[in-house]
Amino acid sequence: MRKILFLLAAVLTIAACGNVQSNMNTQELQSVWPKGEPNTGYAQYFIGNSYLANMSDGLLNVTFEPKCRNNWHIHHGAVQVLICVYGRGWYQEWGKPVVELHEGVVVEIPEGVKHWHGAAKDSWMQHLTYHKNAQPDASNEWLEPVTDEQYNQVQ
Amino acid sequence: MRKILFLLAAVLTIAACGNVQSNMNTQELQSVWPKGEPNTGYAQYFIGNSYLANMSDGLLNVTFEPKCRNNWHIHHGAVQVLICVYGRGWYQEWGKPVVELHEGVVVEIPEGVKHWHGAAKDSWMQHLTYHKNAQPDASNEWLEPVTDEQYNQVQ
Repeated sequence: MRKILFLLAAVLTIAACGNVQSNMNTQELQSVWPKGEPNTGYAQYFIGNSYLANMSDGLLNVTFEPKCRNNWHIHHGAVQVLICVYGRGWYQEWGKPVVELHEGVVVEIPEGVKHWHGAAKDSWMQHLTYHKNAQPDASNEWLEPVTDEQYNQVQ
Repeated sequence: MRKILFLLAAVLTIAACGNVQSNMNTQELQSVWPKGEPNTGYAQYFIGNSYLANMSDGLLNVTFEPKCRNNWHIHHGAVQVLICVYGRGWYQEWGKPVVELHEGVVVEIPEGVKHWHGAAKDSWMQHLTYHKNAQPDASNEWLEPVTDEQYNQVQ
């Protein structure tokens, strides 16, 4: 009987604690970082839904739903810093291996480098972002979408 | 018997999941964010031990052990941004109420404002930090320590 009690308790414990992790992968965002408002201004450059929350002057939190990613793009005249704070996703520079984003990963995107970033298939992802060394004429050059074929290769 | 099984499982479940939270408060740092190296360069301006990890050019992660805080200080010629990513702590501007820092809290420290930041008594705390709008002659003015009397009032 003691063995049965122990096994039952262990199974229930694992099941309950496992929810903390699996929630990250469901359709419901479970995060202390704000989701903000739908990113309608840039929706034309994204596949899937993303959201923007203003954290401070010049510091945004970007939330990507599962499978959401932005098009290939290039920053001119500024360096973009990404600070992943929740979930799992991807960052890739053109012609280079993909980099996994998860809490604690920081990426510095040099100006002039073609790249994309987004969530994994099975997880929401949030990254803070700010720009540095920005020139007065800084701009984004938006390019072609990350196709399903490209995206599915990096899962 | 079913009631006993249920109660036992519930108690064990709560106890096991509670460990996730209580680890934050022990003497062992449990964080995905790097602790880095002892902050020896600024130790004279801190009570307790702090650590610095370089995340990217201009972006640092600062780790405060429980009870650790920096002296009152003022930034001249730059705005400092704090992004709390782990644990619990405090930020206070001179003459104003204390602000609790926990994961997801962002603080922008205006130039010229006397303030301090640090961990809670019973928790490690980590915040990322970067400076913006920095002038070539930006500097820090270090002032008196946050006394135990001041610190104990904000717990």
